[in-house]
Amino acid sequence: MTIKVLGYAAKSPTVPLAPYQFDRRATRTDDVEIEILYCGVCHSDLHQARNDWGGSVYPMVPGHEIIGRVLSVGSKVTRFKAGDRVGVGCMVDSCRHCSACKRGLEQYCEQLPTYTYNAVDRHDGMSTQGGYSEKIIVSDAFVVKIPDGLDLKGAAPLLCAGITTWSPLVHWKVRKSSKVAVIGLGGLGHMAIKFAKALGADVTLFTRTPGKEADAKRLGADKIVLSTNAEQMSGVANQFDLIIDTVPSIHDLNPYLPTLSLDGTLVLVGYLGGLEPVLNTVPLILARKSVAGSVIGGIAETQEMLDFCGKHGITSDVEVIPIQNINDAYERMLKSDVKYRFVIDIASLKNG
Amino acid sequence: MTIKVLGYAAKSPTVPLAPYQFDRRATRTDDVEIEILYCGVCHSDLHQARNDWGGSVYPMVPGHEIIGRVLSVGSKVTRFKAGDRVGVGCMVDSCRHCSACKRGLEQYCEQLPTYTYNAVDRHDGMSTQGGYSEKIIVSDAFVVKIPDGLDLKGAAPLLCAGITTWSPLVHWKVRKSSKVAVIGLGGLGHMAIKFAKALGADVTLFTRTPGKEADAKRLGADKIVLSTNAEQMSGVANQFDLIIDTVPSIHDLNPYLPTLSLDGTLVLVGYLGGLEPVLNTVPLILARKSVAGSVIGGIAETQEMLDFCGKHGITSDVEVIPIQNINDAYERMLKSDVKYRFVIDIASLKNG
Repeated sequence: MTIKVLGYAAKSPTVPLAPYQFDRRATRTDDVEIEILYCGVCHSDLHQARNDWGGSVYPMVPGHEIIGRVLSVGSKVTRFKAGDRVGVGCMVDSCRHCSACKRGLEQYCEQLPTYTYNAVDRHDGMSTQGGYSEKIIVSDAFVVKIPDGLDLKGAAPLLCAGITTWSPLVHWKVRKSSKVAVIGLGGLGHMAIKFAKALGADVTLFTRTPGKEADAKRLGADKIVLSTNAEQMSGVANQFDLIIDTVPSIHDLNPYLPTLSLDGTLVLVGYLGGLEPVLNTVPLILARKSVAGSVIGGIAETQEMLDFCGKHGITSDVEVIPIQNINDAYERMLKSDVKYRFVIDIASLKNG
Repeated sequence: MTIKVLGYAAKSPTVPLAPYQFDRRATRTDDVEIEILYCGVCHSDLHQARNDWGGSVYPMVPGHEIIGRVLSVGSKVTRFKAGDRVGVGCMVDSCRHCSACKRGLEQYCEQLPTYTYNAVDRHDGMSTQGGYSEKIIVSDAFVVKIPDGLDLKGAAPLLCAGITTWSPLVHWKVRKSSKVAVIGLGGLGHMAIKFAKALGADVTLFTRTPGKEADAKRLGADKIVLSTNAEQMSGVANQFDLIIDTVPSIHDLNPYLPTLSLDGTLVLVGYLGGLEPVLNTVPLILARKSVAGSVIGGIAETQEMLDFCGKHGITSDVEVIPIQNINDAYERMLKSDVKYRFVIDIASLKNG
């Protein structure tokens, strides 16, 4: 038995997203049925809708920064009840028994997590479909609570842009007096700045674009360094315990390595591909530096991040759009023309 | 005032090493005067003698795996006395007050350590000259004790090949039940295997050359994987907490990254240069893996390593040569024709 749900889907890599009615499963005993209120627009939605990474399956309803309200719960669900404010991020399931899952690191599930869309449910084999839609049904273990008082629109991007930057900050133990740099001021970068500042770090933004100073400082940056300016770059040599590199496209890491401190780490969270030009090992070896990667975060740490956001009043800076504007939003996103995340008001779906 | 010392020196990048008499400083109040008994032959001796890295200054007396006996000590030296068995490694001084030095990480001194040869003394501006010589004068803070019972010939390579592999094993917390892999079975690789085994790890050797199985197992490896064999490589996917990469020349890291476990680190200790072919970030990001570097070790941890070696009876496998054979030894080293480290018997110097 299934239920009919309305959403917006890509029906091929080359056509605009358009209204689409599709089936979702009936609520299982461990499921939470959620009325979607808002859904953030992630760069990876666009990549997958357009099959930039290959392997996309159509029709595809994107969206993995989902905020909603519980409509009903399965018979075994005790943590949620109708009316609760909840979120769903990039994953809706995982194997739940590998060593990564047991450590609460479902994002690194050895059998791969079940992604929120463009994937296949582990139990019934149905295609998963994302948050550009009116409802979603998700196992309670992959649903998180949104703290009271947190603005729901601004909370949506926390489920991907937020956790993607929060997880490495916490994993690499950023704390009061840590020196953190963020490369790139977009959806991920602006969250990295807010979190690093709230954790007590001294925060620097690396950017190639002049004129971002005022905005970066408003978000919490203590300093802005133009990465195209050699003098500014050498002025921050051996400074940073952690660099969060949010750049989603190919870029040269070599200018940043000298700015890491002894034992410092540059962690890539945005770019999947080859490191061109080639990475020089000299700064790595001569100061025990590391280049690492990190992807989203586990469910427990997503809840911890949301609780932290509730306590510190942290949300994403968003531009709310009706779903009818999604294709235009993708074009603007490609030009970095958004401060700093589009969020779809799902109520607009009923306008057709 | 200076003293005359006999050694072997490279007088230019292109001529063989030959006998050379040179000056060393008179003993300062914090100095230890050491009669050199053995000196290991490191690949970097050859690189510097031949100016492969640029910046070499001639005449150059190489050698930084120095074992000797104390002849005399300066007035302020209390830790050593005449007759003590001592060692000197790659460094003979550092700034001693930067944050790295204060943490006992003199190898990462922010003003760079003073290297044992091919460098300039911080106090009197004299060229430093290494262990292919009858005597050396070194500040007591950079002299280590050789435990009783440890074979002196086999102890010499501990001062560079040993500490270079020991330091990352300890820094990345290898312990009982850790899974460690070592890339390359040479001077560094054979020490990495011995140490990792003695620390209780399960140890795998990656090699491109068949036929090393028996020797690797004798040294302590539990398993040998031919890195040219795709089936063997996929058989060790997601296995290793730490990979110590001792390869001194350009090589492709991409085949090794999938063999790291979640949160695993590949640490480069042998290769200074560009990582070609380009490193793919996908395995880094999808399992929070790191590529890092490490160089030698601090003085305190060098002493800890030597004490560990004394307790566990660990020395390097060496081929002892008279100093007159040094040029031939360099040629054999280039062909990896040594098991696993040449050590010069400095007593041979008096034969001319």
